[in-house]
Amino acid sequence: MKEFSVVIAGGGSTFTPGIVMMLLDNLDRFPLKTLKLYDNDEERQGILGEALEILLKEQAPNIDFIYTTDPKEAFSDIDFCMAHIRVGKYAMREKDEKVPLRHGVFGQETCGPGGMAYGMRSITGMLEIIDYMEQYSPDAWMLNYSNPAAIVAEACRVLRPNSKVLNICDMPVGTIRRMSQIVGKNPEDLEVNYFGLNHFGWWTSVKDKEGTEYIDKIRKYVSENGYLTQVEIDTQHTDPSWQATHKKAKDLLSVTPEFLPNTYLQYYLYPDYAFDHMKDHPEYTRANEVMEGREKIVFNHAKEIISKGSAEGISFEIDSHATFIVDLARAIAFNTHERMVMIVENNGAIANFPDDAMVEVPCIVGVDGPEPLTQGKIPSFQQALMFQQVTVEKLLVEAYIEKSYQKMWQALTLSKTIPSARVAKELLDDLIEENKDFWPTLK
Amino acid sequence: MKEFSVVIAGGGSTFTPGIVMMLLDNLDRFPLKTLKLYDNDEERQGILGEALEILLKEQAPNIDFIYTTDPKEAFSDIDFCMAHIRVGKYAMREKDEKVPLRHGVFGQETCGPGGMAYGMRSITGMLEIIDYMEQYSPDAWMLNYSNPAAIVAEACRVLRPNSKVLNICDMPVGTIRRMSQIVGKNPEDLEVNYFGLNHFGWWTSVKDKEGTEYIDKIRKYVSENGYLTQVEIDTQHTDPSWQATHKKAKDLLSVTPEFLPNTYLQYYLYPDYAFDHMKDHPEYTRANEVMEGREKIVFNHAKEIISKGSAEGISFEIDSHATFIVDLARAIAFNTHERMVMIVENNGAIANFPDDAMVEVPCIVGVDGPEPLTQGKIPSFQQALMFQQVTVEKLLVEAYIEKSYQKMWQALTLSKTIPSARVAKELLDDLIEENKDFWPTLK
Repeated sequence: MKEFSVVIAGGGSTFTPGIVMMLLDNLDRFPLKTLKLYDNDEERQGILGEALEILLKEQAPNIDFIYTTDPKEAFSDIDFCMAHIRVGKYAMREKDEKVPLRHGVFGQETCGPGGMAYGMRSITGMLEIIDYMEQYSPDAWMLNYSNPAAIVAEACRVLRPNSKVLNICDMPVGTIRRMSQIVGKNPEDLEVNYFGLNHFGWWTSVKDKEGTEYIDKIRKYVSENGYLTQVEIDTQHTDPSWQATHKKAKDLLSVTPEFLPNTYLQYYLYPDYAFDHMKDHPEYTRANEVMEGREKIVFNHAKEIISKGSAEGISFEIDSHATFIVDLARAIAFNTHERMVMIVENNGAIANFPDDAMVEVPCIVGVDGPEPLTQGKIPSFQQALMFQQVTVEKLLVEAYIEKSYQKMWQALTLSKTIPSARVAKELLDDLIEENKDFWPTLK
Repeated sequence: MKEFSVVIAGGGSTFTPGIVMMLLDNLDRFPLKTLKLYDNDEERQGILGEALEILLKEQAPNIDFIYTTDPKEAFSDIDFCMAHIRVGKYAMREKDEKVPLRHGVFGQETCGPGGMAYGMRSITGMLEIIDYMEQYSPDAWMLNYSNPAAIVAEACRVLRPNSKVLNICDMPVGTIRRMSQIVGKNPEDLEVNYFGLNHFGWWTSVKDKEGTEYIDKIRKYVSENGYLTQVEIDTQHTDPSWQATHKKAKDLLSVTPEFLPNTYLQYYLYPDYAFDHMKDHPEYTRANEVMEGREKIVFNHAKEIISKGSAEGISFEIDSHATFIVDLARAIAFNTHERMVMIVENNGAIANFPDDAMVEVPCIVGVDGPEPLTQGKIPSFQQALMFQQVTVEKLLVEAYIEKSYQKMWQALTLSKTIPSARVAKELLDDLIEENKDFWPTLK
């Protein structure tokens, strides 16, 4: 089988070791010739890179492994770039979460004003790595799961329309794993229909390979328990904030009982709940949870490996969640026609939604990328919520391109998560101040 | 000139005497053979009817005048029905304004949850008078300016698609009168372009008959003063709540500086302002202002006329504001091709908006009704706000037709004025209780 060369952009991310472990676990399906880590933060990546170098020498000595902050070295001679960058890192995520709370609005990584602030930071970073990839490996594909995926995807659509960037999110995959527990199936045996935007959608069908429909069974379960399941799908999801999020799906379902909701709709339909949930601990948000949890665990593991000079007996958790990235790479490399929920330009996939919207729908993925499966017409309640949200995302990208304060104010004002134009303006002025090292200067 | 027969539906309204005075003032342009008042409230209409009968005998003895609660008598042999009904009257308007305040949401006659409650009440009453008109005078036209006009218009579109109902609102007319003061012109000399929904739109052009554009001059004025003008256009608008509304247009303009806003956009863009403005006097809302102001004045005048047996020296104020109703009747009767802002089915008038939305745009009105003037594509911020709002209105009409609790909950949840699905549900349960004599039973 062909062997591939891969660069992971965001090499200093706490997710990187788990993804490397997952790649090692999938070498039979997706063999690696070269694996490179790229980050612009030499220090963070240095720790993970040094540890993974030791680990790979022991566990997969045939793979050429490097970690580098040099774009040319990183992006030359690659087949795929797996991108999970976080512009501003957790220090800025913390601000995305905490600044809105000062204005009576919840703060979150990808939804609402926090996600919008993050979006304005991320576009520059995304364009940079796309351009590196195209300069040094023009035939390569980028498998992008960097957040906030909706805004990043819209920016790519407008600013790099011909680039080979595939936008995908782990959230539908994660929820399907929960559904598979609910119905007692393997997740890979389930096929779904789904419509929405990233972090903003609904499942309309969940079938097994024989065509048996499980949506009624899952709706009944979720109407009682949300997506809380007996066995947790991974460590991250045992954190209290995730547990609350999965449980809240029960209330989301009651608003649109015909379809299964994406859990992040809580931020749009129940922003008061999201706010109340945070305001009791305004100094301890998800960013703090991650920094004190996953971040410490991962970096401590790495330091232990380095100090021992061996990874024997010390293991990073396999991010089995992330096998969808291998599935996607294989779909492109081997034309597998895998069915995957992806973020793509609508072009009629959702019949009563604008063609130029970046939507999330199931696609068949082959050598030329995703072919969206049409999802027909959607109900007017969802259509209107989605149109509001997609317009927020489009206005934000226009604000970025035009450096327009007015459009960014309009984007925040339009958001379902912000109560008024007054709050939007006060929040915007604060976000500008906090993001001044990252955002374009708005005028 | 032909003489016309007119019935005013909502004969017991405080607006009726002013409109009758306006009709008398316009007899040279629009001669009347018969004038009838119709209401289902015998007592209220009785007072106004008796007074107007005395007044008409003195001032226009050639007009056949009656007031009746009998639909057959009222709607037979008429050319026009002028409709300004208020299902539930001011007692229910007061609830529309006060119930939402209990849930931290502003209450208003036509916008937000108050308007939605009123809409659910109004549809039945509107259909009833349309059906009377069609039964007894199938060739007649209804000139409908009953509120909430947006919801009433959508209900007519869906439930009485072939009826000769013309939906028009006095708000654009009123604001043009303010603009005319700002630029020192007569209001009838100004021609506008405008796009939006009822109580939810923007002026894009204000020209005089010679084609000189005044929008920049007006924008400059409004950016400093709102629509507050030196001389008030009528008594009603000297009330403190209206003064505040006109002033607030300054802030609305700052969100969309290219176009002149309808003042009621304050309820959608600054709902916190609207709420704060009301929460200081939750027991004294606009309904109380009207009941203690206009209602007392009008009914006291009527009683004075009755007790004296003469209207000599006692005059109702002419509602010169309302001459647009005569302009509209004349446009139909004499094919004048008057240019008027009306509420019509979109059908491309706003190019990037659904065909089946009831929008407010300038029309040329002739013998067959309004011919909308296309307004082209609108900016995405306004498009998204309008789509959200029009979907609220459509869901509400569907909820009415299907007696669907779920759709009414979705309509409230979707509204820009309501912070969450939780508040929407609590509010809905309250509104159902308060409106149980008027709404269909939702299930």
